[in-house]
Amino acid sequence: MNPNALSKLGLAVNHISVDCVVLGLSDSTLYVLLIKRGVDEKGNTIYDYKLPGGLIYTDEDLDDAASRVLQELTGVRNLHMMQFKAFGSRDRISERDAQWLQESLDDNVKALVTIGYVALGRIGRKLNLHNAGNEVCWVPVNEALKMDLAFDHKTIITEALKAVRHNADADPAVLYTLLPAKFTALQLRMLYEFIYNKDIDVRNFKKKMMQLAYIEPLNEYEQGVAHRAARYYRFNRVKYKKSRRGTE
Amino acid sequence: MNPNALSKLGLAVNHISVDCVVLGLSDSTLYVLLIKRGVDEKGNTIYDYKLPGGLIYTDEDLDDAASRVLQELTGVRNLHMMQFKAFGSRDRISERDAQWLQESLDDNVKALVTIGYVALGRIGRKLNLHNAGNEVCWVPVNEALKMDLAFDHKTIITEALKAVRHNADADPAVLYTLLPAKFTALQLRMLYEFIYNKDIDVRNFKKKMMQLAYIEPLNEYEQGVAHRAARYYRFNRVKYKKSRRGTE
Repeated sequence: MNPNALSKLGLAVNHISVDCVVLGLSDSTLYVLLIKRGVDEKGNTIYDYKLPGGLIYTDEDLDDAASRVLQELTGVRNLHMMQFKAFGSRDRISERDAQWLQESLDDNVKALVTIGYVALGRIGRKLNLHNAGNEVCWVPVNEALKMDLAFDHKTIITEALKAVRHNADADPAVLYTLLPAKFTALQLRMLYEFIYNKDIDVRNFKKKMMQLAYIEPLNEYEQGVAHRAARYYRFNRVKYKKSRRGTE
Repeated sequence: MNPNALSKLGLAVNHISVDCVVLGLSDSTLYVLLIKRGVDEKGNTIYDYKLPGGLIYTDEDLDDAASRVLQELTGVRNLHMMQFKAFGSRDRISERDAQWLQESLDDNVKALVTIGYVALGRIGRKLNLHNAGNEVCWVPVNEALKMDLAFDHKTIITEALKAVRHNADADPAVLYTLLPAKFTALQLRMLYEFIYNKDIDVRNFKKKMMQLAYIEPLNEYEQGVAHRAARYYRFNRVKYKKSRRGTE
C-alpha cells in the first residue's frame, strides 16, 4: 500500500499503529519512556510528548512491529513487550494530532486504531537512548499523566498500568522484573504504591513482606547514603514457584 | 473510505475487524457461538465455520463495533464484551479466506488485523439466534477446536479461553457469570475443567468448594433426573466481596 498515492486521491485510510509503554523504576520512582514531538502551529513549533509508536507494515506481525518501532525510535531492544489493549476511540485524534500526522505521514488519516504494548524495563539496565533525531526521555509516570500528551496516550499509559496490576494480581513475579536484582524494602513498597496507585502502610508492608519466603534478606546494605543504610533483598524465583504451588 | 473504489485502483487496504468469542455453558459443556460460512471452490460451495466478526467503520469506537457486529450477525445483544487481544499475524489469511473476503467485500484485502472480544453468556438466557441469512449455532468448544475454522479463529478461541482464565485467577467472580443463578457442583467443576483445561479431582474439588463461604448450598435439588438429584448452589456476591477484602 502506498499511503501517499491514496491521500492524493483524497481517500481516508484505515491505519493501524502500535504504541509502546515502557516502564522503568529508578530511585523509587516509576518512569515511562516518552518522545518529544514538535507540531507546527501558525508558524511556531509547539512541543509535546508522545509514546514511542508508529504504523505497522501490512506484511508484518503485530509483535514484530512493536519491537521494530521501539527500536527505531529509541534504540531500546530485547525487551519483552506484552500486548495489552487496542485503542480505537473516534475522538483519539485531536486537531494537533491530525496536523502532526499530516506533517509526518503526508497522508489523510481519519481513523487510527493503535495496539498498546507494555514492557517492564529496569532503568539500571542502561538502555541505549541515543537515537538520531528523536528526543527520548524517561519521565516520572505521575508527571507524564499531568502533561499534555499526544493522542490518547494518557489513557494508554493508565490502561498499561492497569494491565500490569492485573497481571501482578494473577502472578506477583511480574513486579520483580521492574526491580534491580538487589532491592530495598522502600523500592518494593514504592513499586506497589505506583502499580496499585495507593499509599501503603510502611509497618504492615514490611511485616507482610517478611512473611514471604521468596523475598530473601541479604547481608548487604546500601552504601554512601546520608540516611541510615537500608538492607537489600532479593527475589528467589525457585521459592516463589514453590509457594505458588502450595496455594493452588 | 470506500473500499471498492480503492480495490478498483488495485491498492491493498489495511483492514481492521472485530471478532467475538461468545462462550456459554449448557449441560456441563462449554459452547462457543459460530457462524456457517460458504466459500466457492471450483464451482462448489464449501462450508466451514467462523466466529461472528466484521470490519469496523472508521467513525466507530472499537467496543461499539464489537456490539454492533455481534448483533447484526447473531441477534445477540446486551452482552458484556471484553476486548482481550489483537491478532495480526501475516499468515492469518488462507487462500480460502482471501477468496471469501473477495466474495463478501469485493475488495483487495492484503492485511487484516482483528481485535478479539470475549463475552460470557448463559445459554439458558435464551439468546435470540434467529437472524436473516446467517446460520448461527452453538458448538462445543472442544469440537470447535478440532474443526476447520476460518482465518486464525482457532487461535482466537484458545486465546479467549486464556484471557478468561487469566481474569478468573485475578477475580474468580468472572466464572460465575457463565453459570445459571442456581448451579450444581458438577456444573461448577466442569466449568473449572474447561477454563483451566485439566481434569479436577471430584472429592478435592467438592471439599475446597465447601470451604468457600460465598458458595451457598440451597435446599433445592435437581428435578426429573434419572440419576441421584444433585443439590443446587448459588454464588453470593456480598460474601465474595468480603472474602476478597480479607485476603488483600
